[in-house]
Amino acid sequence: MNFVRPTLLLDKEICLRNISMMAEKAKAKGLVFRPHFKTHQSAIIGNWFRDFGVTAITVSSVRMAQYFAKHGWNDITIAFPVNILEIEEINALAKDVNLNLLIENLESVEVLATQIKQKVGIFIEIDTGHNRTGIASNKYLGINAMLDVIKSTKKFSFIGFLSHTGHTYLAQSRHDIYNRHFDAVLKMKALKNHYKKEFPDLILSLGDTPSACLCENFDGIDEIRPGNFIFFDLMQYKLGSCDFEDIALRLICPVIGKHGSRSEVIVYGGAAHISKDSIINIDGKRLYGQIVVNRNGEKILLDERNYLYKLSQEHGVIRTTIQAFNNFKVGDLIEIIPAHSCLTANLMGSYMTTEGEYIPMMGCDQSSYSGNDSASSNLLTASR
Amino acid sequence: MNFVRPTLLLDKEICLRNISMMAEKAKAKGLVFRPHFKTHQSAIIGNWFRDFGVTAITVSSVRMAQYFAKHGWNDITIAFPVNILEIEEINALAKDVNLNLLIENLESVEVLATQIKQKVGIFIEIDTGHNRTGIASNKYLGINAMLDVIKSTKKFSFIGFLSHTGHTYLAQSRHDIYNRHFDAVLKMKALKNHYKKEFPDLILSLGDTPSACLCENFDGIDEIRPGNFIFFDLMQYKLGSCDFEDIALRLICPVIGKHGSRSEVIVYGGAAHISKDSIINIDGKRLYGQIVVNRNGEKILLDERNYLYKLSQEHGVIRTTIQAFNNFKVGDLIEIIPAHSCLTANLMGSYMTTEGEYIPMMGCDQSSYSGNDSASSNLLTASR
Repeated sequence: MNFVRPTLLLDKEICLRNISMMAEKAKAKGLVFRPHFKTHQSAIIGNWFRDFGVTAITVSSVRMAQYFAKHGWNDITIAFPVNILEIEEINALAKDVNLNLLIENLESVEVLATQIKQKVGIFIEIDTGHNRTGIASNKYLGINAMLDVIKSTKKFSFIGFLSHTGHTYLAQSRHDIYNRHFDAVLKMKALKNHYKKEFPDLILSLGDTPSACLCENFDGIDEIRPGNFIFFDLMQYKLGSCDFEDIALRLICPVIGKHGSRSEVIVYGGAAHISKDSIINIDGKRLYGQIVVNRNGEKILLDERNYLYKLSQEHGVIRTTIQAFNNFKVGDLIEIIPAHSCLTANLMGSYMTTEGEYIPMMGCDQSSYSGNDSASSNLLTASR
Repeated sequence: MNFVRPTLLLDKEICLRNISMMAEKAKAKGLVFRPHFKTHQSAIIGNWFRDFGVTAITVSSVRMAQYFAKHGWNDITIAFPVNILEIEEINALAKDVNLNLLIENLESVEVLATQIKQKVGIFIEIDTGHNRTGIASNKYLGINAMLDVIKSTKKFSFIGFLSHTGHTYLAQSRHDIYNRHFDAVLKMKALKNHYKKEFPDLILSLGDTPSACLCENFDGIDEIRPGNFIFFDLMQYKLGSCDFEDIALRLICPVIGKHGSRSEVIVYGGAAHISKDSIINIDGKRLYGQIVVNRNGEKILLDERNYLYKLSQEHGVIRTTIQAFNNFKVGDLIEIIPAHSCLTANLMGSYMTTEGEYIPMMGCDQSSYSGNDSASSNLLTASR
């Protein structure tokens, strides 16, 4: 067997371990586990969650909600501020499934109120410090204005407050993540206390992978929606959310050239495969991926002095130390651990598991894998 | 009519004008015009070139070569260093079409020589200063070693030397582009002079859009392979390769939120749609796109103080001036001109023309456009 071009290799065993870890943690904390499916975008991978008792999911678009509804999920939160232009699709979808929508401004909810035809749940998105979307937790006038529309619309049922504490991704230390999460918890709890008389059943929903992995205090929180934890990546590793052994995803790339004068190795695998998302490396430069090579049948993770540092549409350029340079041979396959697995998966459109199962993603028949080959669980040793 | 989610809008008239411009220029300079199809990746758009006499094309992968071969193109150069792991596909493809491969190192061509079963043309890739792939033009020993393998392999026919002068993209001025291009022309001509006795029919092929647009001196060059010029983008505009009116591609995005306290507008349209490719803005920050809004039925291009400056998977965050902020309304559609059109097209998987024609791309049935709607040539005025 041989992989012949950039292929997304997934270790299912690690994925199941990651799902189990998060499901157990949610259970131990008394939290509803509503995983975000935007990371994997796959019906087959979605099914892996069912064995862990998951019945409710999070998605980031109406399209994704349609896809997972088609594949048997009937309790879906679209954790993206409602796009009122998609009202037709929303009405069609809410006929079939229990759909929760997210609002963050009065304009949207007012238009939505006039056009909604089915019962939907409504979350108000709270900005707990990420400063992307959501209303600040202390803007009671704004929140009340939205609640007035929700209350006066029969098709709406107010579910509660939802926040994505995405600023944990910018944290400089583990304590920084604790602080940002704790601050979010306090802000959300204050809202619950303020509104619980009027809405005794309202829930609080939090969402990011770093705090879901690292934090222990979920006092007053009812639901978590992490997504990335199923695969993890270098960004999560750097934040301390996971160990290296927990990263389930690698991009397999053929080596197509070596340039000793620059100590650079060229792979088939570029921005069209791994995405231009990056983290900052020890040398202050952008790092798009770290490298695993095969040395005498053994997989070796190269240190951060060897990394994917430049991308064209199809080319990846790996900078190496003089010593590590000799580990690469033209025609070899290497593994790249992506900086951000969500965007790599989104580009690749399909996975191959280490057991040889082909797994397509939503909306894309394109396979990065040559259907003529069969897979192996020990890729690098088996190749060539 | 309404676009309801991120959609790639293509002005066919501008595309045809851009193709015409480049075809005319090639003709005037006596150059073969072998356009790079990696930019658009679409059989329908590929056909637009036929009216301008184009019969030979460039692609960046074996897959792309297979796709365009299936759609009637039979003279294809894969301008990417040969990936010997794809030898089966290469042999199958070379049965059906006139295929040119690119080599840049001895290891690849030696393996290729033992495994090739069909006649193929071989280009040697020359690094004229881009420092990505290719052998330096003065490394005669290395070039001779590759030529020895080419000469001793009956299935190989040596076509000539090929270079991608990609360092024109890093130029700081128009004169910088002239200089880099002229330097490349001189290096390539020296090779022609050196080898023309042995290979009187060898050709020189150059490839980037900036020099193809801006430069006039192609002395000794036989073929050009620009690709991006069909769409252009902000990067090309910044380099001076095109006027603003020549940019044919825009990402239509719904406005989903406004945050006056930060003077930020949130659109549905993120890294999963426009890609994380960027140029540097006047404020030194990364700019992912520039914005066109609709003001009283008129399309207005906002200046660079208003730009797409932050991307999540699905969210785009636009920073605006206080004055421009009022041009945006939740539920509006805006147009984003991407920093780099190739990567945006690659992510979106399909186009909608301003005349309402749906154009799918290679290998992806996924449409970014809701098939229920019909398009309009005056999108912003017609919407809502």
